[in-house]
Amino acid sequence: MEIPRQQFHSKLQVIKEAIDECDFIAIDTELSGLHRPGGSKRLDTLENRYIEYKEATERFMIIQFGMCTFTWDEPGGRYIAKPFNFYIFPTSMTGKIQPNRIFMTQAQAFDFLAKQSFDFNKWVYQGIPYLTVTEEKEYISEAVKKVNDHLPDIRIDEKERKFVEDAKSRIRKWKEDPKKTDDTDGVNINTRNAYQRRLIYQEVRKSFPDLTAEGRAGFIRIMKFTEEQRKKRVREQHNRIKKDCEDAVGFRKVIDMISASRKVVVGHNMLLDICHVIAQFIQPLPETVHEFKKLSHQVFPLMIDTKYLCAASTELRAVIGSGTALENLRFETNQEKFKNPYVDMSIEFPRYLHDKEHEAGYDAYVTGLVLLKLHSHLEIQANPPPPETPEEEKQEEEVESEKDEVPEEKRKLRGNTGGWNISDDEEGEDANWLASDDEDDQINQDDDEDIYNYGSTRYPLTDHETRKPTSVIAGFVNKVVMVRTAFEYFDFANPERIDPTLETFYINSASSNDIALLEKEILALVSEYGKCIIDTVSNGNYDGRCKHSQTKNDREAINPTKRDQEYSN
Amino acid sequence: MEIPRQQFHSKLQVIKEAIDECDFIAIDTELSGLHRPGGSKRLDTLENRYIEYKEATERFMIIQFGMCTFTWDEPGGRYIAKPFNFYIFPTSMTGKIQPNRIFMTQAQAFDFLAKQSFDFNKWVYQGIPYLTVTEEKEYISEAVKKVNDHLPDIRIDEKERKFVEDAKSRIRKWKEDPKKTDDTDGVNINTRNAYQRRLIYQEVRKSFPDLTAEGRAGFIRIMKFTEEQRKKRVREQHNRIKKDCEDAVGFRKVIDMISASRKVVVGHNMLLDICHVIAQFIQPLPETVHEFKKLSHQVFPLMIDTKYLCAASTELRAVIGSGTALENLRFETNQEKFKNPYVDMSIEFPRYLHDKEHEAGYDAYVTGLVLLKLHSHLEIQANPPPPETPEEEKQEEEVESEKDEVPEEKRKLRGNTGGWNISDDEEGEDANWLASDDEDDQINQDDDEDIYNYGSTRYPLTDHETRKPTSVIAGFVNKVVMVRTAFEYFDFANPERIDPTLETFYINSASSNDIALLEKEILALVSEYGKCIIDTVSNGNYDGRCKHSQTKNDREAINPTKRDQEYSN
Repeated sequence: MEIPRQQFHSKLQVIKEAIDECDFIAIDTELSGLHRPGGSKRLDTLENRYIEYKEATERFMIIQFGMCTFTWDEPGGRYIAKPFNFYIFPTSMTGKIQPNRIFMTQAQAFDFLAKQSFDFNKWVYQGIPYLTVTEEKEYISEAVKKVNDHLPDIRIDEKERKFVEDAKSRIRKWKEDPKKTDDTDGVNINTRNAYQRRLIYQEVRKSFPDLTAEGRAGFIRIMKFTEEQRKKRVREQHNRIKKDCEDAVGFRKVIDMISASRKVVVGHNMLLDICHVIAQFIQPLPETVHEFKKLSHQVFPLMIDTKYLCAASTELRAVIGSGTALENLRFETNQEKFKNPYVDMSIEFPRYLHDKEHEAGYDAYVTGLVLLKLHSHLEIQANPPPPETPEEEKQEEEVESEKDEVPEEKRKLRGNTGGWNISDDEEGEDANWLASDDEDDQINQDDDEDIYNYGSTRYPLTDHETRKPTSVIAGFVNKVVMVRTAFEYFDFANPERIDPTLETFYINSASSNDIALLEKEILALVSEYGKCIIDTVSNGNYDGRCKHSQTKNDREAINPTKRDQEYSN
Repeated sequence: MEIPRQQFHSKLQVIKEAIDECDFIAIDTELSGLHRPGGSKRLDTLENRYIEYKEATERFMIIQFGMCTFTWDEPGGRYIAKPFNFYIFPTSMTGKIQPNRIFMTQAQAFDFLAKQSFDFNKWVYQGIPYLTVTEEKEYISEAVKKVNDHLPDIRIDEKERKFVEDAKSRIRKWKEDPKKTDDTDGVNINTRNAYQRRLIYQEVRKSFPDLTAEGRAGFIRIMKFTEEQRKKRVREQHNRIKKDCEDAVGFRKVIDMISASRKVVVGHNMLLDICHVIAQFIQPLPETVHEFKKLSHQVFPLMIDTKYLCAASTELRAVIGSGTALENLRFETNQEKFKNPYVDMSIEFPRYLHDKEHEAGYDAYVTGLVLLKLHSHLEIQANPPPPETPEEEKQEEEVESEKDEVPEEKRKLRGNTGGWNISDDEEGEDANWLASDDEDDQINQDDDEDIYNYGSTRYPLTDHETRKPTSVIAGFVNKVVMVRTAFEYFDFANPERIDPTLETFYINSASSNDIALLEKEILALVSEYGKCIIDTVSNGNYDGRCKHSQTKNDREAINPTKRDQEYSN
């Protein structure tokens, strides 16, 4: 479902329902320019890489955001996918309070998008604007200050003195006897510019504290309000600020809803996506990688990176091989062994019945689809189903075996592989039936008898009660791919583990103060043996130590260097 | 005529013809972001303003360029306009040698363009790329270096040593006796990456100087060439470089053609346009405003700014008033007194039969149209036509009066106001007639009898022989509008004149070394009396002096300050 700016507010409820009902959410972004990690560097430190990503978020922006919710459909024995595609453009057309944003565009990134038939007119004409959390707070504080008339005084320019005096004299005259003037309810002071308007507000506040000045088109109207009227006016003004601000917050509402759901967020090679999402919709990225991890983890408590999952899981690598590009994963998970679970596109979301690669909404859909297949495969491997039994015995036996293995709560969630879970369903349908009161609904309910059950199995990613990742996936959660560093992954929740394929050794420093000196000495010592990086392991088991590492197998290197086995372990 | 990337090369001839035949060229640009001169500042120095513009050219880029040629049509007694509209996008899709350009986009600028129905898809999908003069030179020098194999040696990584030795041994074997191998004409070395390819070129160059290595898809072919073959290959390579480069130069060719024509270039408020044109298509803007003037003047020797013309000409201000926005000028020049000359759109350029404001091609057309009307008005004011005479006497008398005033050469160019200039025309048509050899042309020539003559007068902007501006317009040439400075205008060819409406005084400094100190002292002295700027008048009459100025009439000022008449003259 494509959500243009013009329909954003009316579709918010549909988006919210999809998030509320779903099992998990897959996301993807398209950017106005792409950071290329490392460049010519073979290895980079964690801090350096983070700084590069942070800088990328300050330059480029998300111009399309894809989100796809996946919801288990018990009667259908399948998942239902709801893909959403949002163009993001910081337009000022929807209101007065959009900051004047300037962002960078990389011509090659647009060329890439053009190859995928990206619609740049939809982007500018229908893209949804946004305010970050920080910007929203600033806006409200400024607006409230203005409404409460807490602006600092400004001096009156010589050439405006007559204008101000004339205005004051007119106000005084009206105040003394409104009936003597041609407008008994108030007096209008014509203004030519913002400076004159501000002067009038200022003079009314100082010289006529019992009067109220209200800006109109081309003039300011000065009136006498009762205390009741004045309070009402302030209330109205505050409500208008709230409303204006809500409109301006725009797309960030979707990010807020995803975050508030605390549900698993799935991406593919998602570190850069997360950096951009945080920087564009929450706040500028913090100075240190440590703060960034903390912040991201607060926003998205459970993340799964399909690229990391495939690269890190021995079981999956054995089936899929080393190609972890999204298109490849989609191709590989078409194999028979990945047939569970069955995933259908919601009938209200027909946009992706045909492939539309590299549209964010479509890529989010594929990412979630791939995750379901991979996760199911891991679950089946961990708990192989019992050997095939004749069809008539199957249903009964499976119910039996489930009873033995899983507690009551989990069994409900898992659904079953063959036939309907009749008792649960009928209860649900009955409740629905009683609640519905129009004929259409009744007809739909009658159709229930014809629902086809695809008989696939639901393997939840998290425990229904504790909301913790299940054992099969737990080791992969909050870890994302990060190439060309000394680490196996980037970890949002814990210290990273050093890549065991690197030639690495650890150095304990006597005190943390001499690390800079120590680094210099190490570099002097090892530089003749080739390129190396020194990374400070700031937390976890290796706190305070330095690390020297070098790739063992760096086929793409352009400037290879001499290696020495003596200096590695 | 809209020129998409895909048709650019095939349309170059049409563009060239339009430039070659025309009387003058009007231009306009649309930008990815807009520099706002001055910001909150009331006055700015020339150098500061220039630096701001220079920075703007480093951030934002021209995304649409409009050009409209105006050509006097003698038989029709009118001007023919040919408007061209080019989208400009630095795509890499047309070749390998486009630099990876990153530019800034201002959301509000796109909002503005969206209001004018700008087509962002045409921009990215059909925009024409370009190389600056500087980039073209760099590219050629790099490419020639590569072709001549003048790349520096690189070291062979340990892990590639075997690959290199294997390759060398295969080449040696083939060289010793090609007939013993399965490919007598050459030997193919498979390569996996750019590093391996570079190693092979290097080893062939060093160990087999009599062999030639030629890159293919996935491998390098090593062959033995005769001296003749080798020379031919080098020639082919140089030709390919030239061809690739010509493609990549792209839109700059249009700028080069305009510049080469040495014709008058007309713009509206054109300083920023010229800055962007130079920076994007010629070279990055130089450090100082002085160098910039020199460079621009070399590129475009004769510029006329319609906005400046209206603001500076007392005669025009009297008729048009103070509104110098392009739309306003168009509106005002619809008055009866601006009816000369008649301007028609070329029948092959039907795009703007309906208004399309703020499309660069259309704005260029309007700018040129307005200039023709304004200039004609000035000419008529300077040389009022004789009082009305009965219709039958008119033609004869005007020819008479022209004979008195203008030399033979000029008279030809001016055309006439009533009737046909029969003798000149028939000569021209005859020549055409003889040259044409297909039936279509003959039919067109036959139609000549029906050509309607609009009877308007041509007033050339420059003298046909000397190519110097005519007296009426000379005072306005190469001067463009520059607001919020101490100067009346920006002058590409001469020192600027100080705005006489400013409160200004001049200070002679004893030596140019103490200017910084002097400025500090002046500021300390005058700051209590209000805001002031100090500008160094670097050339012209006031060389070496400092200037203190302040607007007398600054209605839009937000922070006005105290003024003191004692300190101004």
